[in-house]
Amino acid sequence: MKTNLARIKNDIEQLSKFNATPGKGLTRMTFTKEDRGAGEYLKEQMRQAGLEVFEDAAGTIVGRLEGEIDSPVVMIGSHYDSVKNGGNFDGPAGVVTGLEIARLMKDNNLKPKYPVEFIAMIEEEGTRFGGGLFASRAIVGDVTRESLDTFKDSQGISIAEAMKEFGFDPDKIYDAVRKPEDVKAFLELHIEQGPILEAHGKDIGVVEYIVGINEIQVIVKGRPDHAGTTPMTMRADPLDTSSKVISKISTFAKEAGEGTVATVGILTVLPGAANIVPAEVSFTVDIRSKKAELIKQVRKNIEDSLEEISKLNGVQYTTIDLLNVPPVKLADDIIDKLNKYSYNLGFKKELMLSGAGHDAMVMTKITDVGLIFVPSKAGRSHCPEEWTDYEDLQKGIEVAYETIKDIAEVK
Amino acid sequence: MKTNLARIKNDIEQLSKFNATPGKGLTRMTFTKEDRGAGEYLKEQMRQAGLEVFEDAAGTIVGRLEGEIDSPVVMIGSHYDSVKNGGNFDGPAGVVTGLEIARLMKDNNLKPKYPVEFIAMIEEEGTRFGGGLFASRAIVGDVTRESLDTFKDSQGISIAEAMKEFGFDPDKIYDAVRKPEDVKAFLELHIEQGPILEAHGKDIGVVEYIVGINEIQVIVKGRPDHAGTTPMTMRADPLDTSSKVISKISTFAKEAGEGTVATVGILTVLPGAANIVPAEVSFTVDIRSKKAELIKQVRKNIEDSLEEISKLNGVQYTTIDLLNVPPVKLADDIIDKLNKYSYNLGFKKELMLSGAGHDAMVMTKITDVGLIFVPSKAGRSHCPEEWTDYEDLQKGIEVAYETIKDIAEVK
Repeated sequence: MKTNLARIKNDIEQLSKFNATPGKGLTRMTFTKEDRGAGEYLKEQMRQAGLEVFEDAAGTIVGRLEGEIDSPVVMIGSHYDSVKNGGNFDGPAGVVTGLEIARLMKDNNLKPKYPVEFIAMIEEEGTRFGGGLFASRAIVGDVTRESLDTFKDSQGISIAEAMKEFGFDPDKIYDAVRKPEDVKAFLELHIEQGPILEAHGKDIGVVEYIVGINEIQVIVKGRPDHAGTTPMTMRADPLDTSSKVISKISTFAKEAGEGTVATVGILTVLPGAANIVPAEVSFTVDIRSKKAELIKQVRKNIEDSLEEISKLNGVQYTTIDLLNVPPVKLADDIIDKLNKYSYNLGFKKELMLSGAGHDAMVMTKITDVGLIFVPSKAGRSHCPEEWTDYEDLQKGIEVAYETIKDIAEVK
Repeated sequence: MKTNLARIKNDIEQLSKFNATPGKGLTRMTFTKEDRGAGEYLKEQMRQAGLEVFEDAAGTIVGRLEGEIDSPVVMIGSHYDSVKNGGNFDGPAGVVTGLEIARLMKDNNLKPKYPVEFIAMIEEEGTRFGGGLFASRAIVGDVTRESLDTFKDSQGISIAEAMKEFGFDPDKIYDAVRKPEDVKAFLELHIEQGPILEAHGKDIGVVEYIVGINEIQVIVKGRPDHAGTTPMTMRADPLDTSSKVISKISTFAKEAGEGTVATVGILTVLPGAANIVPAEVSFTVDIRSKKAELIKQVRKNIEDSLEEISKLNGVQYTTIDLLNVPPVKLADDIIDKLNKYSYNLGFKKELMLSGAGHDAMVMTKITDVGLIFVPSKAGRSHCPEEWTDYEDLQKGIEVAYETIKDIAEVK
């Protein structure tokens, strides 16, 4: 028996019903009644697939298929929480992949050498409590007991309080930690959330690197002057300076190459009046690349440009690091398997970068990790229009199925 | 008897006491108790200077010195309202000029051929009701009865309601209108509000032109994409586009020359998240020049640049006119007199543009107008640090005094 398109479609559609904003995209925040509803659905599907179901101390739902030996375990899954007004696929596509593979292994009466755990994680997006990647960070031991009190939702409710309310004991958070020797591999399927696979007419993205991210804030301070009475040559205009730097950033990223990207997404101007030369401009730059040295190169080009133009314009600047995450190389062995099964199944695959962080990125801390992308329509994600054709998701699941059977050594 | 520095200083200091924000700069809004207090001080000074005092139908305080003939009248003055948290000189410097000249004419027992009216206007800044230049627009007939109901303050009180509360009849607003044949000239002294006189070591600015202003809003629409997953070549980034245009605007203004300036003072980015390529950027451009064709040239360069870069970047743009005021040439005859008396008095003068609108600009609609600038420390204005040395103000008053005696044909 092979993958079943109707089951896959049904899973996605059933999960999409647990939604706080019907008609306005999918909103499913952690430790809410929508979380509870989706979780119960997942647990029921897991039980029907013959899995032993439990929840870890952080709230991750685990369906376990025993192997010939007890350990190490092969894990596959993704998250089922969402952004506000997001789509039906970011997260659930990977969770449903696990469900379908579990069903296929039952349908085909397969017995793996290594146990396989099908997992459904929460709070990856950080929509409710900020931070994000909560469940995977708990698994690798990066969530402290203290942080459960520190991180709060918009109502002031801490993670610890919400956990208790939902039936979890925050004092047991460290029980969620897995040791490297207990985990053989982690595989995640996720929608691409970008336009590349569709544009290139490919079925499967085999992720080689999860990009590093350096997010910086640049503050440029000049002098507020009257827009009518101050000659051009007597100004210290931080927006003139900033625009001259920002206008070069796309070129800096293209010159770095190898998929390096850089984005200015926030820019504010003070005091912000049409007839006043700005006093201060603040903007963010988000730089991502598979190579740390390319991130550094773009950053240096930006700082050099700031230095040069600030001197000419008589303004001062500062830069602050907001985020600095190194790039991650995924496991060559799993990449090889994903390539092989994509080829064997007749799918067109492309080696890719992941431009976004995923639970897969966190899991590299303790185990070998593989990450499969399936196409996103028009590259859209985190919006109601987010879409992946079920046939495309099915292809990704078939590659994941073959790969899991290989890694778990199914006879 | 000559100008008296102590009297000038005292006037400025006394007026600065009628202030809604002591310790945080000067705030004196129209038809408030601060307005009432300053107005009473001015009327008392005018009476002591031997003037016949009345208020016109819009609230302008007038001190009249009769001439040998009844008409036309020579007018001199400025405004005494302020911006929020402004300084002591923007407006009052010109009102005090009138007071001091009135006192000098009394001290020296001078009798002009033409009557001289020393005027103190209100709501020039538009701080309370928006719009601004209220008193001078009433004089030239540009304030309609309807507009007194339309324009309201932040509490929802209309100009008409505030006028009644203050003792004026809004239905008589047209009584404030002066006919061109009834006014021989209008002279205003104002602080420069810019850095030029100080930087050039000059005493007196003789204004030749009040610049025209074209304020436009540019809206650039692209496509919001994920900052990590969207390759540089597959983006439609409106901030990349906008920065490339804005970075050229200072050059466009410098190329136009003749004092032309252009400023981007407001810029907003939507949705405004560090990890999302912007969907939309909106910014203002404020272009000012003494020549309408230079304003048009800068505007065309901006639109050409928008057109070219928008096509390359795959974004759309629109431009909207927010304000379009033509440049005004002041009266050659008065400019000649201001030049002559500056020279005769041994002051260093510079022919200048006024980069800001003033009541003088409005008055050109009905009469010959002259405008004198005195230096602003560091070019600062509309802030508590706004400052003009009393000795510098005194020099301006002396030039104004000689010029008024000339125009009014004092024997």
